[in-house]
Amino acid sequence: MSDLALAVFAAETGAHLVEVPRERRFERFRRSFDEASCRSKLSARGLRFVGREEGAYPPRLRELHDPPPGLFLRGGAPIELLSAPAVAVVGARACSSYGSQVAQLLGRELSAAGLVVLSGLARGVDGQAHRGALDADGRTVAVLGCGIDRDYPAAHAQLAARICDRGLVVSEYAPGVEPAPWRFPARNRVIAGLAAATVVVEARERSGALITADFALEAGREVFAVPGEITSTLSVGTHALLRLGATPLTCAGDVLEALGVEPPAGGLPELGETASTVLAALSEEAAGVDQLVRGTGLDAAAVSTALAELELAGIVAEAEGLYRGVRPQD
Amino acid sequence: MSDLALAVFAAETGAHLVEVPRERRFERFRRSFDEASCRSKLSARGLRFVGREEGAYPPRLRELHDPPPGLFLRGGAPIELLSAPAVAVVGARACSSYGSQVAQLLGRELSAAGLVVLSGLARGVDGQAHRGALDADGRTVAVLGCGIDRDYPAAHAQLAARICDRGLVVSEYAPGVEPAPWRFPARNRVIAGLAAATVVVEARERSGALITADFALEAGREVFAVPGEITSTLSVGTHALLRLGATPLTCAGDVLEALGVEPPAGGLPELGETASTVLAALSEEAAGVDQLVRGTGLDAAAVSTALAELELAGIVAEAEGLYRGVRPQD
Repeated sequence: MSDLALAVFAAETGAHLVEVPRERRFERFRRSFDEASCRSKLSARGLRFVGREEGAYPPRLRELHDPPPGLFLRGGAPIELLSAPAVAVVGARACSSYGSQVAQLLGRELSAAGLVVLSGLARGVDGQAHRGALDADGRTVAVLGCGIDRDYPAAHAQLAARICDRGLVVSEYAPGVEPAPWRFPARNRVIAGLAAATVVVEARERSGALITADFALEAGREVFAVPGEITSTLSVGTHALLRLGATPLTCAGDVLEALGVEPPAGGLPELGETASTVLAALSEEAAGVDQLVRGTGLDAAAVSTALAELELAGIVAEAEGLYRGVRPQD
Repeated sequence: MSDLALAVFAAETGAHLVEVPRERRFERFRRSFDEASCRSKLSARGLRFVGREEGAYPPRLRELHDPPPGLFLRGGAPIELLSAPAVAVVGARACSSYGSQVAQLLGRELSAAGLVVLSGLARGVDGQAHRGALDADGRTVAVLGCGIDRDYPAAHAQLAARICDRGLVVSEYAPGVEPAPWRFPARNRVIAGLAAATVVVEARERSGALITADFALEAGREVFAVPGEITSTLSVGTHALLRLGATPLTCAGDVLEALGVEPPAGGLPELGETASTVLAALSEEAAGVDQLVRGTGLDAAAVSTALAELELAGIVAEAEGLYRGVRPQD
């Protein structure tokens, strides 16, 4: 029996298959299926496949009750990357600036500590988590809900290419499979399955990220939820997770501690007096330049210079004119 | 034995006493103490005293292992107010605009549901919780960490007067006792002791509000912590409480449900199209007028008019130019 045959058959028939179907059609397909030729075609396109029966198949994924028959791979990293300690960072597509900044921060800090950052290449939280990992020269893996040859969303084609440079894009779906709504929950089980722990950054009341969290809990993996303001609808889902017993995540260190990973050495770079003053003013609440000028007594030029210095050092992030301190723990 | 004698002796000697001291000095004091005259002097100043041995002493407070010998009372409400279902809303003095708005919202909604809102008359979260209750024509009780005749902080003298109109200011300390740092943790035990549940709105890493939470847990009462942004140092204490098992509070309804109190009827007032558009834009993140103009495509005048309408209806709150939707649940 060939896992690759099953994966290709599923793609051609538009079905989600994790077990060999008891139908003549598959039997006929399997007999005519030329695995060697299929593998060489994949290879010609820079793609790989790892089947459930191969030793390189990720052990954490195998633990699911319905592991995919195999994964298609795109990108330069060795397949062992999928078995390295990994954390899923997922959340809303239309996230807030807070969610965006926290996702990027977590991507950066978790990958800087040596963890693989997993996500779904989607807009919003997913993309920011991948970007954070890439910013830290870390390793990141994107799991698609469509065929391995597709960049979905199209706006993230360049991000996918950057991920492939050092990491992997993976999918249980063979080339040519179109994105379809029902494939995304299935994709989320792969994200949760590959990850030792799952972090939900921002999620509305009924959010795909909560499905990922459910899969993670079902697989007995730790789920973290990032708290946010109770006045934001984007934190309704994460707070619901907290009420269900998810661990509140307050910094990347919480995940490292749970997984027994040493935090990397380092700390805040040396800051000038002005930058320190501005950072202190940001430690309690996001603020715009005007508020910072009023709050610190500095002039607008000094505040702007300090903000540029802090942004460059990765200590402060900006979105829509609002600045936020993103490393309060140091 | 007179609880009042003990309370006055404690005030005169500057000691924190919950049991009769085994010293001659107290014995001499007690023999010369004229309770009737003391009570009439209190009464002349509009003050009352309820001793631990009186039936009107609040039963929840009596459950503490070290209940105060009695409480001095100021204000017009009957003493039974102290035995009515009550919730403590406490937090940072130097809170953020988020903390301020949430404290006021909770004060308003909890008291509108018929609960007494307890707090410590301090700046920041405490004051806002009292104000919210007063705004809703609700009942609120302030517990002082100094003599019952003192308004501390002085800036809240007017707030204390408003509280006395419909509610009570209480203290275990007799008239004349100066505020002292060591009295505030003792005061916090009275707040936690009078309350059926305690809500911590914002708290730094080492915050007095966490002491109140500890007392509440020790007394077997439910503790709620309001989540906030993990990039704010003002949420470090509340998130630490969540990690210790406090219940995340997402709306006033969470407290009502825990205490078995029916939420009051009502909902959002009818809003015009423009106000609805602006409210929707605020549902995910606090924003300034400029951001709202960009996000909604409305002009600045229309946005300002809508914000005024929403503020008046108590659905949106403003601080330092930043607007926040404060009733996302409805």
